[in-house]
Amino acid sequence: MRILVTGAAGFIASNLIPRLLARGDEVWGADNFFLGKRSYVPKHERFHFHELDLLDLEQVVRLFETAKPEVVWHLAANSDISFGTKYTDFDLKGGTLVTYNILEAMRRTGGKQIIFSSSGAVYGEPTVMPTPEDYGPILPISLYAACKVACETLITAFVHNYDMRCWIYRFGNIVGPNPTHGVIHDFVLRLRENPRRLVVLGDGTQSKPYVYVEDCIAGMEFGYRAAQNAVNYYNLAVDDQTSVTEIAEWTIAAMSIDRSEIEVTYTGGPRGWKGDVAQVQLDTRRMSRLGWRPKLSSHQAVRRTIREIVEQFRNGPPS
Amino acid sequence: MRILVTGAAGFIASNLIPRLLARGDEVWGADNFFLGKRSYVPKHERFHFHELDLLDLEQVVRLFETAKPEVVWHLAANSDISFGTKYTDFDLKGGTLVTYNILEAMRRTGGKQIIFSSSGAVYGEPTVMPTPEDYGPILPISLYAACKVACETLITAFVHNYDMRCWIYRFGNIVGPNPTHGVIHDFVLRLRENPRRLVVLGDGTQSKPYVYVEDCIAGMEFGYRAAQNAVNYYNLAVDDQTSVTEIAEWTIAAMSIDRSEIEVTYTGGPRGWKGDVAQVQLDTRRMSRLGWRPKLSSHQAVRRTIREIVEQFRNGPPS
Repeated sequence: MRILVTGAAGFIASNLIPRLLARGDEVWGADNFFLGKRSYVPKHERFHFHELDLLDLEQVVRLFETAKPEVVWHLAANSDISFGTKYTDFDLKGGTLVTYNILEAMRRTGGKQIIFSSSGAVYGEPTVMPTPEDYGPILPISLYAACKVACETLITAFVHNYDMRCWIYRFGNIVGPNPTHGVIHDFVLRLRENPRRLVVLGDGTQSKPYVYVEDCIAGMEFGYRAAQNAVNYYNLAVDDQTSVTEIAEWTIAAMSIDRSEIEVTYTGGPRGWKGDVAQVQLDTRRMSRLGWRPKLSSHQAVRRTIREIVEQFRNGPPS
Repeated sequence: MRILVTGAAGFIASNLIPRLLARGDEVWGADNFFLGKRSYVPKHERFHFHELDLLDLEQVVRLFETAKPEVVWHLAANSDISFGTKYTDFDLKGGTLVTYNILEAMRRTGGKQIIFSSSGAVYGEPTVMPTPEDYGPILPISLYAACKVACETLITAFVHNYDMRCWIYRFGNIVGPNPTHGVIHDFVLRLRENPRRLVVLGDGTQSKPYVYVEDCIAGMEFGYRAAQNAVNYYNLAVDDQTSVTEIAEWTIAAMSIDRSEIEVTYTGGPRGWKGDVAQVQLDTRRMSRLGWRPKLSSHQAVRRTIREIVEQFRNGPPS
């Protein structure tokens, strides 16, 4: 199968692409290395990497003309939510406009299928928890989430008008090796720098479902094969949640830091930053009914990821 | 009160601005005359019109620095839904990016309040009718509606992060004098050109709630004064619907065309065009509970508008 992966040097793609190659797919990848890392890009005879800026529509169209993908895994995005509050056009450009370019390139070159990494953040601060896929109203509180909604709706509009199909996944927090950002990534790096003090954003009670990246990819692939509507949209999460305090404590322990020798302080308040949805529970029943369940719980995913990142970052963060 | 109106030469703004001026407001207006008409721009000592492209952020910021508006009526948009299917970046630029520029200019200059004209089209083809504001999932079928969702979510994210307030109104079809587009506008113009033949898009059964523009403006103003949350969002519609066939027949009669002398043909199919939501019913109870009701029903709004547009276009369409 011919497959194009955007954000190919990013966290999820770098876990996905080896799996696609192992089963025999021909894979094209694009990344601009803004968040992605060169060391995460696989080398393989059936993998064709293009360093390019997806904001350049003509380059994107040329890539589609070359790759002629049967399906696009559109994973390129700003995945660092707090960043989007500092630079207000960051998600708009790197998310909304890039997604438009992908869809327009599909339209111009006959592309028909897109798999998209959305987020449970689209629900804002919902009054229903766990939050199901048909929750409304959709009133997000971060520019990151606003962008994810904009991308989702561009996708559904293109699907309707140009006879495409889409699989939209609203993720919990995805964790695993090859991180580019995120709480475990940050804690490990900061504890490497200073094992005597850890500052935690918020009051530590922020609590979210963490999904192991292999489960995430398996779930997306399962949905792609099993869900046959034109527009398919699913929460992709687990049923338990892990708090930031738990992640901090487990990371300290995993790095063999003596708990009595380290001061953990909290910046306070219920959120990590403005726009952070502090309490997330996603209703996973639609994916269950489709026939898919994650292998690892949130706690298991977090503990395993901490071990893996501590090991991966042993000699410093990847380049 | 200092007020900025975007899309100032457009249909709704040209009905709004005289009302604001009559009650003593100081009003700034911006338009690029893409859809808006020069003859719709009022002349008044307290009205300051700026011809500019809202896609130019620096110009928008300068306008905000000059006007220092207490509230922005952000009405600029592509209001011609089928257009957005032909030019796939049209709503993205003229809607999403322009709305970002308005919000970013507010953020930079201390602007705090925005009133936004959204659309019932955001609900896509809902399974609940009449459709309430908390309907989900939000899966629009036109690029126009995708853009309206993108704008709504940009607004709610800015409101959350930069301490603003917003009033989002999801309109039914707004009708009245000074049209720039729309079914009555089109029928009148086409019947003036050829009173012997009228081609109607779709099968004529498309049925929507038509709101008279004075009701629309009164409702927006009422909500602005009565609804005091940071994020306020309401359907703004009427409870009955009018079909395209009814509009066609009433327009023919209003233009004194002998029904036996004209051939009315239908292009067929349930929709007027791809992305058209053919059957619209919006739940109006939240606006009712707030204390506001429209004066005219859909049928009354359509009949009155037909008379007014036939009269207004008697010597040809306005420039």
